[in-house]
Amino acid sequence: MRKRIRDLGIIIGTLPTGEQNKITDVPGVNVGHITKVVDKANNTSIRTGITAVLPHQRNLFQEKVPASSFVLNGFGKTAGLVQIEELGTIESPIMLTNTFEVGTVWQGTLSYMLDQNPDAGDKTGSLNVVVGECNDMYLNDVRIQSLITQDAKKAIKAAKADADEGAVGAGTGMMCYQFKGGVGTSSRKVREGYTIGVLVVSNFGKREELEAARYKPTYMDDNQIPDGSIMMIVGTDAPVSERQLKRIAKRAPVGLARTGSRVHHGSGDIVIAFSNGYTIPHSKHGEYLEKQMLIRDDSLVMNELFQGVEEATEEAILNSLSKAETMTGRKGRVVEGIPYSLF
Amino acid sequence: MRKRIRDLGIIIGTLPTGEQNKITDVPGVNVGHITKVVDKANNTSIRTGITAVLPHQRNLFQEKVPASSFVLNGFGKTAGLVQIEELGTIESPIMLTNTFEVGTVWQGTLSYMLDQNPDAGDKTGSLNVVVGECNDMYLNDVRIQSLITQDAKKAIKAAKADADEGAVGAGTGMMCYQFKGGVGTSSRKVREGYTIGVLVVSNFGKREELEAARYKPTYMDDNQIPDGSIMMIVGTDAPVSERQLKRIAKRAPVGLARTGSRVHHGSGDIVIAFSNGYTIPHSKHGEYLEKQMLIRDDSLVMNELFQGVEEATEEAILNSLSKAETMTGRKGRVVEGIPYSLF
Amino acid sequence: MRKRIRDLGIIIGTLPTGEQNKITDVPGVNVGHITKVVDKANNTSIRTGITAVLPHQRNLFQEKVPASSFVLNGFGKTAGLVQIEELGTIESPIMLTNTFEVGTVWQGTLSYMLDQNPDAGDKTGSLNVVVGECNDMYLNDVRIQSLITQDAKKAIKAAKADADEGAVGAGTGMMCYQFKGGVGTSSRKVREGYTIGVLVVSNFGKREELEAARYKPTYMDDNQIPDGSIMMIVGTDAPVSERQLKRIAKRAPVGLARTGSRVHHGSGDIVIAFSNGYTIPHSKHGEYLEKQMLIRDDSLVMNELFQGVEEATEEAILNSLSKAETMTGRKGRVVEGIPYSLF
Amino acid sequence: MRKRIRDLGIIIGTLPTGEQNKITDVPGVNVGHITKVVDKANNTSIRTGITAVLPHQRNLFQEKVPASSFVLNGFGKTAGLVQIEELGTIESPIMLTNTFEVGTVWQGTLSYMLDQNPDAGDKTGSLNVVVGECNDMYLNDVRIQSLITQDAKKAIKAAKADADEGAVGAGTGMMCYQFKGGVGTSSRKVREGYTIGVLVVSNFGKREELEAARYKPTYMDDNQIPDGSIMMIVGTDAPVSERQLKRIAKRAPVGLARTGSRVHHGSGDIVIAFSNGYTIPHSKHGEYLEKQMLIRDDSLVMNELFQGVEEATEEAILNSLSKAETMTGRKGRVVEGIPYSLF
Repeated sequence: MRKRIRDLGIIIGTLPTGEQNKITDVPGVNVGHITKVVDKANNTSIRTGITAVLPHQRNLFQEKVPASSFVLNGFGKTAGLVQIEELGTIESPIMLTNTFEVGTVWQGTLSYMLDQNPDAGDKTGSLNVVVGECNDMYLNDVRIQSLITQDAKKAIKAAKADADEGAVGAGTGMMCYQFKGGVGTSSRKVREGYTIGVLVVSNFGKREELEAARYKPTYMDDNQIPDGSIMMIVGTDAPVSERQLKRIAKRAPVGLARTGSRVHHGSGDIVIAFSNGYTIPHSKHGEYLEKQMLIRDDSLVMNELFQGVEEATEEAILNSLSKAETMTGRKGRVVEGIPYSLF
Repeated sequence: MRKRIRDLGIIIGTLPTGEQNKITDVPGVNVGHITKVVDKANNTSIRTGITAVLPHQRNLFQEKVPASSFVLNGFGKTAGLVQIEELGTIESPIMLTNTFEVGTVWQGTLSYMLDQNPDAGDKTGSLNVVVGECNDMYLNDVRIQSLITQDAKKAIKAAKADADEGAVGAGTGMMCYQFKGGVGTSSRKVREGYTIGVLVVSNFGKREELEAARYKPTYMDDNQIPDGSIMMIVGTDAPVSERQLKRIAKRAPVGLARTGSRVHHGSGDIVIAFSNGYTIPHSKHGEYLEKQMLIRDDSLVMNELFQGVEEATEEAILNSLSKAETMTGRKGRVVEGIPYSLF
Repeated sequence: MRKRIRDLGIIIGTLPTGEQNKITDVPGVNVGHITKVVDKANNTSIRTGITAVLPHQRNLFQEKVPASSFVLNGFGKTAGLVQIEELGTIESPIMLTNTFEVGTVWQGTLSYMLDQNPDAGDKTGSLNVVVGECNDMYLNDVRIQSLITQDAKKAIKAAKADADEGAVGAGTGMMCYQFKGGVGTSSRKVREGYTIGVLVVSNFGKREELEAARYKPTYMDDNQIPDGSIMMIVGTDAPVSERQLKRIAKRAPVGLARTGSRVHHGSGDIVIAFSNGYTIPHSKHGEYLEKQMLIRDDSLVMNELFQGVEEATEEAILNSLSKAETMTGRKGRVVEGIPYSLF
Repeated sequence: MRKRIRDLGIIIGTLPTGEQNKITDVPGVNVGHITKVVDKANNTSIRTGITAVLPHQRNLFQEKVPASSFVLNGFGKTAGLVQIEELGTIESPIMLTNTFEVGTVWQGTLSYMLDQNPDAGDKTGSLNVVVGECNDMYLNDVRIQSLITQDAKKAIKAAKADADEGAVGAGTGMMCYQFKGGVGTSSRKVREGYTIGVLVVSNFGKREELEAARYKPTYMDDNQIPDGSIMMIVGTDAPVSERQLKRIAKRAPVGLARTGSRVHHGSGDIVIAFSNGYTIPHSKHGEYLEKQMLIRDDSLVMNELFQGVEEATEEAILNSLSKAETMTGRKGRVVEGIPYSLF
């Protein structure tokens, strides 16, 4: 059983963590994984999965959450950002998977939402689904497209107030700094009782970059290894606006940079941030909302949210490394879990 | 057989049209439709389809085209824009369909591209698919999700150097200004022999907006009618950069505005623009490209490309109206083809 | 005395205007002009000025207003947009002038604000000034840089609950569709008692474009005429967010397009929108604000604000034409006030 | 005489530096400073200046350079970015100064350019000036606005193929991590003989943030210290496009993050990047340009440019600290040059 980075005695930053030190410390946030590890007769290996991040446990279409995104490097296929930027809301679970199954997961998530909302597409209008991805093609036969729409529904239904890490869900076949990567998460408490949490799917970097962060890696040379990507999902219960969420999202890469990433050309590095501190109702009962908003961008809470997202992103990435077990996958390739001596 | 707006004696703008007055006047651009009109036993009506716009007839992944996009109103689900903005290229057909089948069409298009490119996802990396949508829920039972991935492939394979208009392809179930809308296209010749063409899927507006443009509509009152959207695809063979394509894309709404649209809240109004005047090779043979570029933003060609996209967008929208036949669909609803007396 | 377009019997749109049909119908909004028309001994002609739009009549630094901007065509020198986009607020008057005196007007406005706020730059931090511009070089010797910082203060102090139109303030030397242009304004009432108003400085277009809008111009040929620009300032008292203000700002070009503009390459077409429906206090008394916000983007109020900004922008541009008198300026050039027969 | 960070035995990254390890290693790039340190009778202290970065030594208006920008945190007053983003070019020196004299420096720089270009504003059109700023109000009496337009011209004329560091030019009154900061610069050689260089004006951060980067600071507590900002100017001779320059600009914050910055709310963190590998002529001789462009975003050169900008930004910031002497300024405040033992 692999350990979390903090259990190895490495403390990132100065803010206190939430109780679990996971994104699910943000009250109401749940995470679900489905993991697919199959070796087929025809010599193909499936090492992939889906991770669903649910901003709250009610009907997300009926009670939308304020949200924003930041694209550090847009070499990626994330779907759903256009509407998030226009309307400042998320109305579906945030789904993460591999690069070649965005469509299937999108369609499965839509079906889940349609089941839950019989009026959508009938009496009322459309429904925006959010799917992010990284490319697990080194270990996973992505060309197979092994997922089915039902898998997306399963990931959503598996969501709970806890989040496994390492080679699970969307992280199953991912690699980070040429070690085994995958899902990692962390959280921070900020003043006034708010929490900010981050969940990443890490799939980027070369070993020498980790060195840049003052770690001590050995080297690996395989020109088959693609540049990779990272998805960073940020949640908080602080009642911030979509504009403030964009500012928070733009700080997540600070944590990424501190682990050593050079943000390679081929790395789709994308942040999606939401608050469940208040919701925006879908149905039209009244045009106004009395929101108690954290109006002050210059407040201590905001600066701690910035600090929190940076620390939690850095720690989530390190957790995705420290928790991930060595995995053998496609073409017999072995990706090693990072030796703890390297930290 | 319904007529095009120009056959009704209405001339938009002052630039000459291309030979067909269609986006396919841009040499190499092909358009394919699949149309699904089915009335099922369980009293559901399918009125939908897919339209594929192919920037050229070779392998788009191997020979990418420079591209950009402009989101006038981001209440929409278009997938693929993140990478277009980062890398300035399109590497798949541009697919258009209904709001609830973006995932299926995405996945089908990816499969088509994977078939064509055996190395993608194996030796080389990822592949970006572009899918735009409008919501045809007034006439089409969108909740059914009747399309299959194979339909996307069929639309691509049906592509030819011509483009049917009206209630075909992605336009099958769409409505515009509360008349029957759908696919419309137009083109303009600019100096130095270049062509710029536009293809729209029109699905927006109320009758009184058309009046704002000095037309003379009657009124229709049905609060079931959603706000609707418009997808505007722009192609040219002028050798412009991705930045210049964004400037061109931002002028398409000028044509939209001239038809009367108020760009309602619920209308996802999105422009995707490409040039096939040169291509960017996928394979790594040399780091440089000698491009003969239209470097001058202040050139007469650029200003005519701006004028051309405005005129062709306006005319494409009017063609989508004038060519569309009256259609009966979901719940027995009838959407009337616009009477020519209103122009 | 030249007339407003409505006095010529031309009605734009369907929403009712505010009492004056000016941006100053938005309660609290004031507009000030200083106009400089000087013919100097050395054969140079000054035809320029400054227009100040004050979102409210109190201390703007202490009570900031929510704001956003939209750059349709960024061939322009507007200063101050970076911070508006980050923080979603405006904290100074919105200043308009000619292209070559942005710095002077910026510095003069800052001095005004520093006088008003002794702590700024001493105990508290910085202060963001907003200055937009159009290029009046056809009639005005812009190279002279005739304005002084004191002129900016004078324009602010001249602000009142009314707004002269035509060849005044920043509009003094401007031309529109090759007729005399300048300042124009208009407003609309929307439901729930809110008002939306627009003030433009018009300085764009060729005569044949006006024709495109179904007017009947004669032609003018002078290749010395630059492409020109338009600044569009939008104010409302509806309590909308900075994100919603961006959506409103993006609809102003619909009105611009309806007058015929092709949005030439050289035209810096920029919208700045604010609400004074609530304010954000500068001083740190409490981190929260109870805002009663127009939370629903799909509300009827929002759609009427969209319609209102389109109609008011179109009418403001036409007012800038119909109100402007023929002017003689630099090098003896004459720019004709548009003959009313052309409308 | 204070030392550079590399002279203290600290090596940042793995790429080789240019000959001087300064932005002026990029052939053609010059840097000029004017420094104003004056204690006035009325007990005010001026500690400010101007830094001019010249992309090449010819007429910038006649031979524009491709350029882009990235706003990490837009709490800043930088002028000129609107046109850079639209046209992808810079046509003036890049000027840096304090927050409250952007207008004066803008106007002075314009005058310089007008002197150099007699046709601008007469026969041809406008001219875009770029001015960035940080707030030196802790040491400098910014409210005084002590600079005059002539100072901007002096800074430009002082430009040479070398760049002093520390408390000079725009860096005169700045502080970084609560030590004395200011101007710092660094460069990297990448393959194919290209160079990438960075010049920063550092004025951000608290001592405990520097600790986050594994340095060992002591603490300083003064709630008068504003959040501060950083301007990062990036130059290269690699023939990259404006889109690629934006990608490069987005990597500069990686270097910033590695020094420890939390990117506070109040910190305007802005990157401006240019290439002088080719130029775009102002005059209209021919519409085409044969550019030999670094077309491949996935090339080794591009990834080294990314790595280079990260390393050079980190080192430039550390140089701005290590080179800056202790300074006494406004209200007798002393800001200590960082003790070398802390590195």
